[in-house]
Amino acid sequence: MEDRILEQGAIIGYDIVKVDMFLNHRIDVDLLCEIGKEFRRLFPSKEINKILTIEASGIGIACIAAQYFGVPVVFAKKGIHRNVGNDIYTGEVFSFTKNQTTQIGVSKKYITAEDRVLIIDDFLANGAAVKGLIGICEQAGAAVEGIGICIEKGFQPGGKELREMGYHLESLAIIKSIDDGIITFG
Amino acid sequence: MEDRILEQGAIIGYDIVKVDMFLNHRIDVDLLCEIGKEFRRLFPSKEINKILTIEASGIGIACIAAQYFGVPVVFAKKGIHRNVGNDIYTGEVFSFTKNQTTQIGVSKKYITAEDRVLIIDDFLANGAAVKGLIGICEQAGAAVEGIGICIEKGFQPGGKELREMGYHLESLAIIKSIDDGIITFG
Repeated sequence: MEDRILEQGAIIGYDIVKVDMFLNHRIDVDLLCEIGKEFRRLFPSKEINKILTIEASGIGIACIAAQYFGVPVVFAKKGIHRNVGNDIYTGEVFSFTKNQTTQIGVSKKYITAEDRVLIIDDFLANGAAVKGLIGICEQAGAAVEGIGICIEKGFQPGGKELREMGYHLESLAIIKSIDDGIITFG
Repeated sequence: MEDRILEQGAIIGYDIVKVDMFLNHRIDVDLLCEIGKEFRRLFPSKEINKILTIEASGIGIACIAAQYFGVPVVFAKKGIHRNVGNDIYTGEVFSFTKNQTTQIGVSKKYITAEDRVLIIDDFLANGAAVKGLIGICEQAGAAVEGIGICIEKGFQPGGKELREMGYHLESLAIIKSIDDGIITFG
Protein backbone atom coordinates (compact mmCIF):
# COMPACT_ATOMS: atom_id res chain seq x y z
CA MET A 1 0.00 0.00 0.00
CA GLU A 2 2.84 2.40 0.86
CA ASP A 3 4.62 1.58 -2.40
CA ARG A 4 1.46 2.20 -4.37
CA ILE A 5 0.90 5.59 -2.75
CA LEU A 6 4.45 6.66 -3.60
CA GLU A 7 4.19 5.30 -7.13
CA GLN A 8 0.74 6.50 -8.15
CA GLY A 9 -0.49 8.93 -5.53
CA ALA A 10 -0.73 12.62 -6.32
CA ILE A 11 -0.39 15.34 -3.74
CA ILE A 12 -2.70 18.34 -3.71
CA GLY A 13 -1.78 21.22 -1.46
CA TYR A 14 -0.28 20.35 1.89
CA ASP A 15 -2.64 17.75 3.24
CA ILE A 16 -4.45 15.89 0.47
CA VAL A 17 -3.05 12.81 -1.19
CA LYS A 18 -5.02 11.72 -4.21
CA VAL A 19 -5.26 8.00 -4.86
CA ASP A 20 -7.90 7.94 -7.54
CA MET A 21 -5.51 6.07 -9.84
CA PHE A 22 -6.01 2.84 -7.91
CA LEU A 23 -8.43 3.28 -5.04
CA ASN A 24 -11.27 5.71 -5.47
CA HIS A 25 -12.03 6.50 -9.08
CA ARG A 26 -10.15 3.92 -11.08
CA ILE A 27 -10.06 0.80 -8.92
CA ASP A 28 -7.25 -1.74 -9.18
CA VAL A 29 -9.17 -4.86 -8.28
CA ASP A 30 -6.02 -6.99 -7.86
CA LEU A 31 -4.83 -4.50 -5.25
CA LEU A 32 -8.24 -4.66 -3.58
CA CYS A 33 -7.86 -8.44 -3.31
CA GLU A 34 -4.51 -7.98 -1.56
CA ILE A 35 -6.12 -5.41 0.74
CA GLY A 36 -8.97 -7.81 1.50
CA LYS A 37 -6.59 -10.66 2.37
CA GLU A 38 -4.56 -8.37 4.61
CA PHE A 39 -7.66 -7.23 6.50
CA ARG A 40 -8.59 -10.88 7.03
CA ARG A 41 -5.11 -11.51 8.46
CA LEU A 42 -5.31 -8.44 10.72
CA PHE A 43 -8.83 -9.23 11.92
CA PRO A 44 -8.88 -13.02 12.32
CA SER A 45 -11.92 -13.03 14.64
CA LYS A 46 -14.47 -15.59 13.49
CA GLU A 47 -17.18 -13.58 15.21
CA ILE A 48 -17.23 -10.83 12.58
CA ASN A 49 -20.50 -11.30 10.74
CA LYS A 50 -20.85 -8.04 8.83
CA ILE A 51 -18.72 -5.43 7.13
CA LEU A 52 -19.95 -1.85 7.39
CA THR A 53 -18.72 0.94 5.14
CA ILE A 54 -19.92 4.20 3.66
CA GLU A 55 -20.66 5.12 0.07
CA ALA A 56 -19.11 5.55 -2.37
CA SER A 57 -15.43 4.63 -2.40
CA GLY A 58 -15.62 2.28 0.58
CA ILE A 59 -18.02 -0.05 -1.22
CA GLY A 60 -15.58 -1.72 -3.60
CA ILE A 61 -13.00 -2.29 -0.88
CA ALA A 62 -15.63 -3.68 1.48
CA CYS A 63 -17.16 -6.00 -1.13
CA ILE A 64 -13.84 -7.51 -2.14
CA ALA A 65 -12.74 -7.85 1.51
CA ALA A 66 -16.07 -9.46 2.42
CA GLN A 67 -15.22 -12.41 0.18
CA TYR A 68 -12.38 -13.32 2.55
CA PHE A 69 -14.65 -13.02 5.59
CA GLY A 70 -17.66 -14.76 4.08
CA VAL A 71 -19.99 -12.05 5.35
CA PRO A 72 -22.35 -9.50 3.78
CA VAL A 73 -21.58 -5.80 3.37
CA VAL A 74 -23.81 -2.97 4.50
CA PHE A 75 -23.02 0.52 3.35
CA ALA A 76 -24.25 3.69 4.98
CA LYS A 77 -25.98 5.96 2.51
CA LYS A 78 -25.33 9.65 2.29
CA GLY A 79 -28.22 12.11 2.22
CA ILE A 80 -31.84 11.10 2.49
CA HIS A 81 -33.12 8.86 -0.27
CA ARG A 82 -36.74 8.30 -1.08
CA ASN A 83 -36.16 4.55 -1.33
CA VAL A 84 -34.54 4.01 2.06
CA GLY A 85 -37.66 4.45 4.17
CA ASN A 86 -37.89 5.93 7.63
CA ASP A 87 -36.62 3.16 9.86
CA ILE A 88 -33.00 4.17 9.74
CA TYR A 89 -30.19 4.83 12.17
CA THR A 90 -28.54 8.11 11.25
CA GLY A 91 -25.42 10.09 11.93
CA GLU A 92 -23.78 13.28 10.81
CA VAL A 93 -20.40 13.32 9.11
CA PHE A 94 -18.45 16.49 8.55
CA SER A 95 -16.08 16.29 5.61
CA PHE A 96 -13.10 18.63 5.95
CA THR A 97 -12.18 17.91 2.32
CA LYS A 98 -15.56 19.04 1.03
CA ASN A 99 -16.25 21.40 3.95
CA GLN A 100 -19.78 20.13 4.40
CA THR A 101 -21.86 18.02 6.74
CA THR A 102 -23.54 14.93 5.32
CA GLN A 103 -26.32 12.95 6.91
CA ILE A 104 -25.61 9.21 6.75
CA GLY A 105 -28.03 6.41 7.44
CA VAL A 106 -28.37 2.64 7.69
CA SER A 107 -31.69 0.85 7.67
CA LYS A 108 -32.54 -0.69 11.05
CA LYS A 109 -33.18 -3.95 9.22
CA TYR A 110 -29.54 -4.30 8.22
CA ILE A 111 -27.71 -3.73 11.47
CA THR A 112 -28.87 -5.27 14.74
CA ALA A 113 -27.74 -6.08 18.28
CA GLU A 114 -26.58 -9.51 17.04
CA ASP A 115 -24.02 -7.98 14.72
CA ARG A 116 -20.26 -7.98 15.28
CA VAL A 117 -19.09 -5.44 12.79
CA LEU A 118 -15.87 -4.74 10.97
CA ILE A 119 -15.84 -1.14 9.75
CA ILE A 120 -13.87 -0.62 6.53
CA ASP A 121 -13.06 2.62 4.73
CA ASP A 122 -10.49 3.96 2.31
CA PHE A 123 -9.26 6.98 4.27
CA LEU A 124 -9.00 7.98 7.90
CA ALA A 125 -8.13 11.59 8.70
CA ASN A 126 -10.22 13.30 11.35
CA GLY A 127 -12.24 10.15 11.77
CA ALA A 128 -15.60 11.78 11.16
CA ALA A 129 -16.89 9.04 8.86
CA VAL A 130 -15.73 6.19 11.10
CA LYS A 131 -17.20 7.87 14.18
CA GLY A 132 -20.48 8.29 12.30
CA LEU A 133 -20.45 4.54 11.54
CA ILE A 134 -19.57 3.70 15.16
CA GLY A 135 -22.51 5.84 16.26
CA ILE A 136 -24.81 3.83 14.02
CA CYS A 137 -23.46 0.57 15.51
CA GLU A 138 -24.09 1.95 19.01
CA GLN A 139 -27.67 2.88 18.14
CA ALA A 140 -28.19 -0.66 16.88
CA GLY A 141 -26.48 -2.25 19.88
CA ALA A 142 -24.01 -3.89 17.49
CA ALA A 143 -20.41 -4.56 18.58
CA VAL A 144 -17.54 -2.98 16.66
CA GLU A 145 -14.98 -5.78 16.31
CA GLY A 146 -12.49 -3.66 14.42
CA ILE A 147 -11.80 -0.81 12.03
CA GLY A 148 -9.79 -1.46 8.86
CA ILE A 149 -8.47 1.54 6.94
CA CYS A 150 -6.46 1.62 3.72
CA ILE A 151 -4.72 4.96 4.25
CA GLU A 152 -4.53 6.84 7.54
CA LYS A 153 -3.35 10.42 7.69
CA GLY A 154 -1.29 10.09 10.84
CA PHE A 155 -0.88 13.86 11.10
CA GLN A 156 -4.61 14.25 11.66
CA PRO A 157 -6.20 13.19 14.94
CA GLY A 158 -8.76 10.51 13.97
CA GLY A 159 -6.51 7.47 14.34
CA LYS A 160 -5.09 8.51 17.71
CA GLU A 161 -8.54 9.27 19.07
CA LEU A 162 -10.02 5.97 17.94
CA ARG A 163 -7.11 3.97 19.39
CA GLU A 164 -7.44 5.86 22.69
CA MET A 165 -11.13 4.99 22.70
CA GLY A 166 -10.02 1.36 22.70
CA TYR A 167 -10.96 0.37 19.17
CA HIS A 168 -8.91 -2.20 17.29
CA LEU A 169 -7.85 0.00 14.39
CA GLU A 170 -5.56 -1.24 11.64
CA SER A 171 -4.37 1.04 8.82
CA LEU A 172 -2.51 -0.50 5.89
CA ALA A 173 -0.52 2.70 5.39
CA ILE A 174 -0.07 5.58 7.80
CA ILE A 175 1.10 8.85 6.28
CA LYS A 176 3.13 10.63 8.92
CA SER A 177 3.67 13.83 6.97
CA ILE A 178 3.50 15.46 3.56
CA ASP A 179 6.22 18.11 3.18
CA ASP A 180 7.01 19.76 -0.12
CA GLY A 181 5.49 16.85 -1.97
CA ILE A 182 7.44 14.25 0.01
CA ILE A 183 5.37 11.63 1.79
CA THR A 184 6.76 10.08 4.97
CA PHE A 185 5.12 6.99 6.43
CA GLY A 186 4.76 6.47 10.16
CA MET B 1 -31.64 -13.16 -9.77
CA GLU B 2 -35.37 -13.53 -10.48
CA ASP B 3 -35.80 -15.83 -7.47
CA ARG B 4 -34.01 -13.39 -5.26
CA ILE B 5 -36.20 -10.49 -6.35
CA LEU B 6 -39.33 -12.50 -5.59
CA GLU B 7 -37.97 -13.69 -2.26
CA GLN B 8 -36.44 -10.52 -0.88
CA GLY B 9 -37.53 -7.64 -3.07
CA ALA B 10 -40.04 -5.13 -1.75
CA ILE B 11 -42.41 -3.20 -3.94
CA ILE B 12 -43.07 0.48 -3.42
CA GLY B 13 -45.98 2.01 -5.29
CA TYR B 14 -46.53 0.81 -8.83
CA ASP B 15 -43.10 1.02 -10.38
CA ILE B 16 -40.34 0.74 -7.79
CA VAL B 17 -38.91 -2.55 -6.65
CA LYS B 18 -36.62 -2.26 -3.70
CA VAL B 19 -33.70 -4.66 -3.56
CA ASP B 20 -31.70 -3.11 -0.76
CA MET B 21 -31.80 -6.42 1.11
CA PHE B 22 -29.21 -7.95 -1.21
CA LEU B 23 -28.09 -5.48 -3.84
CA ASN B 24 -27.92 -1.84 -2.92
CA HIS B 25 -27.79 -1.24 0.81
CA ARG B 26 -27.02 -4.62 2.33
CA ILE B 27 -24.92 -6.47 -0.25
CA ASP B 28 -24.94 -10.26 -0.52
CA VAL B 29 -21.39 -10.79 -1.73
CA ASP B 30 -21.99 -14.46 -2.63
CA LEU B 31 -24.77 -13.32 -4.94
CA LEU B 32 -22.45 -10.70 -6.41
CA CYS B 33 -19.95 -13.45 -7.22
CA GLU B 34 -22.66 -15.36 -9.09
CA ILE B 35 -23.60 -12.16 -10.91
CA GLY B 36 -19.96 -11.56 -11.81
CA LYS B 37 -19.54 -15.07 -13.22
CA GLU B 38 -22.73 -14.73 -15.22
CA PHE B 39 -21.59 -11.43 -16.76
CA ARG B 40 -18.30 -13.11 -17.72
CA ARG B 41 -20.28 -15.89 -19.42
CA LEU B 42 -22.55 -13.40 -21.22
CA PHE B 43 -19.65 -11.17 -22.31
CA PRO B 44 -16.87 -13.59 -23.22
CA SER B 45 -14.94 -11.05 -25.33
CA LYS B 46 -11.29 -11.04 -24.41
CA GLU B 47 -11.04 -7.47 -25.65
CA ILE B 48 -12.85 -5.97 -22.67
CA ASN B 49 -10.18 -4.13 -20.72
CA LYS B 50 -12.22 -1.96 -18.38
CA ILE B 51 -15.48 -2.03 -16.46
CA LEU B 52 -17.28 1.28 -16.16
CA THR B 53 -20.03 1.93 -13.63
CA ILE B 54 -21.51 4.77 -11.63
CA GLU B 55 -21.48 5.42 -7.91
CA ALA B 56 -22.71 4.25 -5.52
CA SER B 57 -24.52 0.94 -5.85
CA GLY B 58 -22.82 -0.07 -9.11
CA ILE B 59 -19.39 -0.13 -7.50
CA GLY B 60 -19.65 -3.34 -5.53
CA ILE B 61 -21.15 -5.24 -8.46
CA ALA B 62 -18.50 -3.91 -10.83
CA CYS B 63 -15.60 -4.71 -8.48
CA ILE B 64 -16.68 -8.29 -7.88
CA ALA B 65 -17.39 -8.81 -11.60
CA ALA B 66 -14.01 -7.32 -12.53
CA GLN B 67 -12.29 -10.21 -10.78
CA TYR B 68 -13.69 -12.56 -13.41
CA PHE B 69 -12.55 -10.29 -16.24
CA GLY B 70 -9.14 -9.44 -14.80
CA VAL B 71 -9.65 -5.74 -15.55
CA PRO B 72 -9.82 -2.55 -13.48
CA VAL B 73 -13.02 -0.70 -12.62
CA VAL B 74 -13.67 2.97 -13.22
CA PHE B 75 -16.70 4.55 -11.64
CA ALA B 76 -18.30 7.80 -12.74
CA LYS B 77 -18.64 10.23 -9.88
CA LYS B 78 -21.79 12.17 -9.19
CA GLY B 79 -21.63 15.89 -8.60
CA ILE B 80 -18.48 17.93 -8.79
CA HIS B 81 -15.80 16.99 -6.32
CA ARG B 82 -12.89 19.17 -5.38
CA ASN B 83 -10.51 16.22 -5.64
CA VAL B 84 -11.41 15.12 -9.16
CA GLY B 85 -9.71 17.98 -10.98
CA ASN B 86 -10.88 19.64 -14.18
CA ASP B 87 -9.84 17.18 -16.84
CA ILE B 88 -13.03 15.19 -16.84
CA TYR B 89 -15.56 13.91 -19.31
CA THR B 90 -19.03 14.75 -18.06
CA GLY B 91 -22.63 13.88 -18.66
CA GLU B 92 -26.02 14.63 -17.19
CA VAL B 93 -28.21 11.93 -15.72
CA PHE B 94 -31.84 12.54 -14.84
CA SER B 95 -33.10 10.25 -12.09
CA PHE B 96 -36.85 9.67 -12.28
CA THR B 97 -36.72 8.01 -8.85
CA LYS B 98 -35.18 11.06 -7.23
CA ASN B 99 -36.63 13.53 -9.72
CA GLN B 100 -33.35 15.36 -10.14
CA THR B 101 -30.53 15.79 -12.62
CA THR B 102 -27.05 14.78 -11.55
CA GLN B 103 -23.81 15.74 -13.23
CA ILE B 104 -21.55 12.70 -13.64
CA GLY B 105 -17.90 12.71 -14.56
CA VAL B 106 -14.92 10.48 -15.31
CA SER B 107 -11.35 11.73 -15.33
CA LYS B 108 -9.84 11.80 -18.82
CA LYS B 109 -6.92 9.85 -17.43
CA TYR B 110 -9.05 6.81 -16.72
CA ILE B 111 -10.91 6.31 -19.96
CA THR B 112 -9.21 6.58 -23.35
CA ALA B 113 -9.59 5.69 -27.02
CA GLU B 114 -7.77 2.40 -26.33
CA ASP B 115 -10.49 1.20 -23.98
CA ARG B 116 -13.04 -1.48 -24.77
CA VAL B 117 -15.55 -0.98 -22.04
CA LEU B 118 -18.15 -3.14 -20.35
CA ILE B 119 -20.73 -0.93 -18.63
CA ILE B 120 -22.26 -2.48 -15.50
CA ASP B 121 -25.07 -1.17 -13.33
CA ASP B 122 -27.63 -2.48 -10.89
CA PHE B 123 -30.80 -1.10 -12.49
CA LEU B 124 -31.94 -0.13 -15.96
CA ALA B 125 -35.23 1.72 -16.30
CA ASN B 126 -35.21 4.75 -18.56
CA GLY B 127 -31.57 4.22 -19.31
CA ALA B 128 -30.46 7.67 -18.25
CA ALA B 129 -27.44 6.48 -16.28
CA VAL B 130 -26.28 4.05 -18.96
CA LYS B 131 -26.70 6.68 -21.68
CA GLY B 132 -24.67 9.08 -19.57
CA LEU B 133 -21.90 6.48 -19.34
CA ILE B 134 -22.10 5.78 -23.09
CA GLY B 135 -21.74 9.51 -23.70
CA ILE B 136 -18.59 9.54 -21.61
CA CYS B 137 -17.18 6.60 -23.62
CA GLU B 138 -17.99 8.46 -26.87
CA GLN B 139 -16.21 11.59 -25.66
CA ALA B 140 -13.18 9.44 -24.87
CA GLY B 141 -13.33 7.54 -28.14
CA ALA B 142 -13.67 4.30 -26.18
CA ALA B 143 -15.67 1.38 -27.56
CA VAL B 144 -18.66 0.04 -25.63
CA GLU B 145 -18.33 -3.75 -25.82
CA GLY B 146 -21.43 -4.42 -23.81
CA ILE B 147 -23.84 -3.37 -21.10
CA GLY B 148 -24.53 -5.70 -18.15
CA ILE B 149 -27.51 -4.94 -15.93
CA CYS B 150 -28.73 -6.80 -12.87
CA ILE B 151 -32.38 -5.79 -13.03
CA GLU B 152 -34.10 -4.22 -16.03
CA LYS B 153 -37.53 -2.70 -15.74
CA GLY B 154 -38.89 -3.98 -19.03
CA PHE B 155 -41.94 -1.75 -18.79
CA GLN B 156 -39.75 1.33 -19.09
CA PRO B 157 -38.07 2.23 -22.36
CA GLY B 158 -34.34 2.20 -21.60
CA GLY B 159 -33.64 -1.41 -22.55
CA LYS B 160 -35.57 -1.31 -25.80
CA GLU B 161 -33.88 1.93 -26.86
CA LEU B 162 -30.40 0.67 -26.11
CA ARG B 163 -30.99 -2.60 -28.00
CA GLU B 164 -32.34 -0.65 -30.97
CA MET B 165 -29.22 1.49 -30.90
CA GLY B 166 -27.30 -1.76 -31.44
CA TYR B 167 -25.72 -2.22 -28.04
CA HIS B 168 -25.12 -5.69 -26.67
CA LEU B 169 -27.26 -5.39 -23.57
CA GLU B 170 -27.74 -8.28 -21.15
CA SER B 171 -30.03 -8.03 -18.13
CA LEU B 172 -29.98 -10.83 -15.56
CA ALA B 173 -33.64 -10.23 -14.73
CA ILE B 174 -36.22 -8.31 -16.72
CA ILE B 175 -39.30 -7.22 -14.85
CA LYS B 176 -42.15 -7.14 -17.32
CA SER B 177 -44.73 -5.71 -14.98
CA ILE B 178 -45.60 -4.97 -11.37
CA ASP B 179 -49.36 -5.27 -10.82
CA ASP B 180 -50.93 -5.22 -7.37
CA GLY B 181 -47.65 -6.26 -5.85
CA ILE B 182 -47.14 -9.16 -8.28
CA ILE B 183 -43.94 -9.11 -10.27
CA THR B 184 -43.91 -10.73 -13.70
CA PHE B 185 -40.63 -11.38 -15.48
CA GLY B 186 -40.25 -10.99 -19.20
